Amino acid sequence: MSAVITFLSDFGLTDTYSGICRAVIATVAPEATVIDLTHTVPALDVRRGATALADCVSVAPAAVHLAVVDPDAATRPGVALVAGASRLVGPDNGLLLPAAEALGGIDAAYLLTDGRWHRAPASPVFRGRDVFAPVAAHLATGVAPSDVGPRMDPCRLQRLDGVDSVVGHRQIATQIRHIDCYGNVQLSVTTGDLQRAGLDHGQPVRVGTRHETLDVRRVDSFSDLSSGELGIVEDSFGWLAIVAGAAAAADRLDLRAADPVRLGDD
Amino acid sequence: MSAVITFLSDFGLTDTYSGICRAVIATVAPEATVIDLTHTVPALDVRRGATALADCVSVAPAAVHLAVVDPDAATRPGVALVAGASRLVGPDNGLLLPAAEALGGIDAAYLLTDGRWHRAPASPVFRGRDVFAPVAAHLATGVAPSDVGPRMDPCRLQRLDGVDSVVGHRQIATQIRHIDCYGNVQLSVTTGDLQRAGLDHGQPVRVGTRHETLDVRRVDSFSDLSSGELGIVEDSFGWLAIVAGAAAAADRLDLRAADPVRLGDD
Amino acid sequence: MSAVITFLSDFGLTDTYSGICRAVIATVAPEATVIDLTHTVPALDVRRGATALADCVSVAPAAVHLAVVDPDAATRPGVALVAGASRLVGPDNGLLLPAAEALGGIDAAYLLTDGRWHRAPASPVFRGRDVFAPVAAHLATGVAPSDVGPRMDPCRLQRLDGVDSVVGHRQIATQIRHIDCYGNVQLSVTTGDLQRAGLDHGQPVRVGTRHETLDVRRVDSFSDLSSGELGIVEDSFGWLAIVAGAAAAADRLDLRAADPVRLGDD
Repeated sequence: MSAVITFLSDFGLTDTYSGICRAVIATVAPEATVIDLTHTVPALDVRRGATALADCVSVAPAAVHLAVVDPDAATRPGVALVAGASRLVGPDNGLLLPAAEALGGIDAAYLLTDGRWHRAPASPVFRGRDVFAPVAAHLATGVAPSDVGPRMDPCRLQRLDGVDSVVGHRQIATQIRHIDCYGNVQLSVTTGDLQRAGLDHGQPVRVGTRHETLDVRRVDSFSDLSSGELGIVEDSFGWLAIVAGAAAAADRLDLRAADPVRLGDD
Repeated sequence: MSAVITFLSDFGLTDTYSGICRAVIATVAPEATVIDLTHTVPALDVRRGATALADCVSVAPAAVHLAVVDPDAATRPGVALVAGASRLVGPDNGLLLPAAEALGGIDAAYLLTDGRWHRAPASPVFRGRDVFAPVAAHLATGVAPSDVGPRMDPCRLQRLDGVDSVVGHRQIATQIRHIDCYGNVQLSVTTGDLQRAGLDHGQPVRVGTRHETLDVRRVDSFSDLSSGELGIVEDSFGWLAIVAGAAAAADRLDLRAADPVRLGDD
Repeated sequence: MSAVITFLSDFGLTDTYSGICRAVIATVAPEATVIDLTHTVPALDVRRGATALADCVSVAPAAVHLAVVDPDAATRPGVALVAGASRLVGPDNGLLLPAAEALGGIDAAYLLTDGRWHRAPASPVFRGRDVFAPVAAHLATGVAPSDVGPRMDPCRLQRLDGVDSVVGHRQIATQIRHIDCYGNVQLSVTTGDLQRAGLDHGQPVRVGTRHETLDVRRVDSFSDLSSGELGIVEDSFGWLAIVAGAAAAADRLDLRAADPVRLGDD
């Protein structure tokens, strides 16, 4: 069986950092299939890394998910999480938790303290290369998670502040979760949230941004929209998204990631 | 034998879309070698996707070529084309045809209607992940093209409007096919076209752009040009290109993709 | 055993050039693991390609290192270098030498003249695809370096002008080697250079840029810096780097690649 390692980071594409990590993985686990999810998470943006990873893992096969967005390298330990048949490896800064939850929750958590699985000597400024990548590779070759370091209580893992939407009666206060390269505006709201708020009634949904308030049709797909028309779809990850027919909704509405958005009555 | 899947899209590099498709492929066809051709086709630019793919397939080994530039997801069906020992998978919007022709023509075409090979439930807004990627992966594992859906008449496949050059007597009216990252200006003209027009006579070729008219030397390689000097070479895909010695010809001439260009007498 | 090929170029990500080379490699060496180090070396910037490659190879497993930054394609031959258990393939323009030295020096050098290992017909304008990639792939399948062409004297390989730092008494004149995507400023100076200059005395190091002179603390890691504070660390490749706590040092100091930097007394 060829093990799969997925790899997400904020290493960018103009340096060799992600390539170097892959070289380290190839040294330890030459038979593993490595899948780059993305390396252009904005530098040090743990929240975006976390949401991107969470959206990916539910689609991926059982795998070792290596994720590195590591602004607090020396103050937060590295961890390996077991979630069903998958493992997640990276810093304990909240990056891995949404993905672990998307995989059904954390079965066990371990601190990456056993130097046997690290590159030596490990640089204090590149844990991705010297700790996370080699540990992920060793896990892919069959090393037991319990061998990488002492077990820890998953409740003590660091969490990101929630981007919880507030679902009220005929009203939802939420935030933009992500804007993709097509200008689709992903919200932290599901169809279920819309139903709970009583807004899934077949009529246009009132959308309030920082700039304006407008009524937007709920549609199934881009093909239900005329060119330039705004619509709300359920995106392929299960989130509601404001989109536009053959156009970039984010440009049309002048929206940016993390902007607040209101749905429903004012 | 390890099957090869090439993968081209307009998914960009800042989202996880291409990574997710690779994760889907790894689930279905863990042994396949996946080669990213490019994922930075400009968003929804079917024509550029088509020309880029066509230039690649003639160099690649026999493979499943997965291509996704899909502005009309819900109105155009998905198709699998057989071209010699290779298969092409993607939307029926003209994206695959130039590549199929570069491979010697279409031997058979099938509609991607058999849900057995799709991800379930399939999202209406991400066919790349839920239809094209898994079908490509299944084909790579040996599923017969005739199993993915009903056979269709290749003559009914959608074609892009031609970028045909008009080759006259001592004159060619053409268009810029692509400008690459070095600023080389690829034209929709071959050496054969130049010969047919009677312009391959060893003298400089008159080049007319929207901005100016100038005489440019026909050379074999960049090394025949002094620094900054313009020249016309046959590029590595067989197209004529306006290039410059150690400089970006597109910047020198202020040219953009799809600009019209005249060769020969005014 | 699955051979490893690392691949570095200035092909960029908006064209299909690196993908096409991988397709060629897959044709010749379908079992090889190909690791992209980076393809965004600035166009024709041999020096940056050389330093990036040199930093990677010491971390990678024994491999065939394919590198293509090729501004003088027709005037400089292609070469294969043997360095320990690794091979380097690319143009003889200085690109490969720092990497070969990082691997312990050149054991043998060969000119890539034997057309048996090239793609035919070879285009005079894309040696990466037609010469370097297929030769690298053949070496990965076990072809002997001595088979790719005649042996040459390594002393005759082209060298880049040195970016040697001048290490004096309590003073070092150096240059910025690279600025990474986080804004970390890598200098062509090692901890050993600092010791030789007598500047490793536990006190702040005086740093002189084109714009200003300031005293910067020598620290072990980013965690020793408060937010925005400048520091000098030994980076993960063994070079000293000017960094900032949770900020881009290059922006703070308005520095660019290849800028001169003085360390120590004025």
